Amino acid sequence: MKPKIGVILAGCGVYDGSEVTESVLTLLALEKAGAEPVCMAPDKEQLHVINHLTGEETGEKRNVLVESARIVRGNIEDVAAASADDLDALVLPGGFGAAKNLSRFAVDGPDGEVDPGVRKLIEEVHGARKPIGFICITPAIAAQVLGGEGVEVTIGTDDETASAIESCGARHVKCAVDEIHEDPERRVVSTPAYMLGQGPAEVAPGIDKLVQTVMAWIR
Amino acid sequence: MKPKIGVILAGCGVYDGSEVTESVLTLLALEKAGAEPVCMAPDKEQLHVINHLTGEETGEKRNVLVESARIVRGNIEDVAAASADDLDALVLPGGFGAAKNLSRFAVDGPDGEVDPGVRKLIEEVHGARKPIGFICITPAIAAQVLGGEGVEVTIGTDDETASAIESCGARHVKCAVDEIHEDPERRVVSTPAYMLGQGPAEVAPGIDKLVQTVMAWIR
Repeated sequence: MKPKIGVILAGCGVYDGSEVTESVLTLLALEKAGAEPVCMAPDKEQLHVINHLTGEETGEKRNVLVESARIVRGNIEDVAAASADDLDALVLPGGFGAAKNLSRFAVDGPDGEVDPGVRKLIEEVHGARKPIGFICITPAIAAQVLGGEGVEVTIGTDDETASAIESCGARHVKCAVDEIHEDPERRVVSTPAYMLGQGPAEVAPGIDKLVQTVMAWIR
Repeated sequence: MKPKIGVILAGCGVYDGSEVTESVLTLLALEKAGAEPVCMAPDKEQLHVINHLTGEETGEKRNVLVESARIVRGNIEDVAAASADDLDALVLPGGFGAAKNLSRFAVDGPDGEVDPGVRKLIEEVHGARKPIGFICITPAIAAQVLGGEGVEVTIGTDDETASAIESCGARHVKCAVDEIHEDPERRVVSTPAYMLGQGPAEVAPGIDKLVQTVMAWIR
């Protein structure tokens, strides 16, 4: 039996959903490592829709689960229906949509609401001592949910975001784009990806290392 | 100076746009090979919008260039404004959108109109003896534009699509998912990708080999 790794998506596109390259490279790394990715996303309306050519809001309404399905050829389910019992680990790719749709961190800061289904799954997976990988901006969600335990994460080198993360009780550690930060006690691993990187070849090594650590920590 | 490789996208999502994984893995392979990808797409309305969860048409209107921008963080231009003089080669990732928006092959078969900007760029790049890589269903576009020269391509093993391609004057050659078919005389290389593959790890080797061949053929 292949280990089943939940991958939580937040839409399709860096500015209002999941960062597409980070999502694909996570799935590629998981498959190469012998895992079976189980993709999931919240079944709700996106915070907003951004025209990725102009950076402007379009006024359209789109659903997070439906748009996330574009990345994975429709092979995705509602995160609210997922159970930690069915998973060996969890990985959250980044993109602004992670901090808009999975949590409201990008809008409301550390107090921004975490999607209830996402919060519940992170808490259950973590409570079962199963590893979780947080990529790019999603360590902010780790801080929101697991900050009370003093979880250690990285979002790269951005001092302002690092301060917001530390205000949740989490500890921020600076990290290069091609590296990861491991918190083995809490089985949390993170990598900066596009918080620092400029292109697919630059973010791939950190994502590969994150996935390898997640796999190594599976009991 | 890094070689500049044009990458023509067709929207964002396998059923009405570019296959997301094929697009990302093409860009990753190009960067790793030392190339600078130059992404482009037609600035026009998509044929239609498909809900990737249900497979049904939604009735929405979306623009091919604007949606393609989601894959590449907004770093993309109108294909109609591109010139073969500025490029060393061209690669076309697949997805049904390639046969709906770059050409109407999926709707009207071999006689389906090829987008004028896409046709012109393929003709100019090919006319300058620069290599072109066709992934997944896009060898159908190769057949439509270059079939008169008897170009050799693969879309894997699908007999019906192969017949349609041969009706354009092209020659179809069967090929495994992790292999490529080279037509060195015409500097055209193709790989089946998701015409046969089931996941990122399965389609990556063929896309890598296709990109390596394109790079090797650059003068």
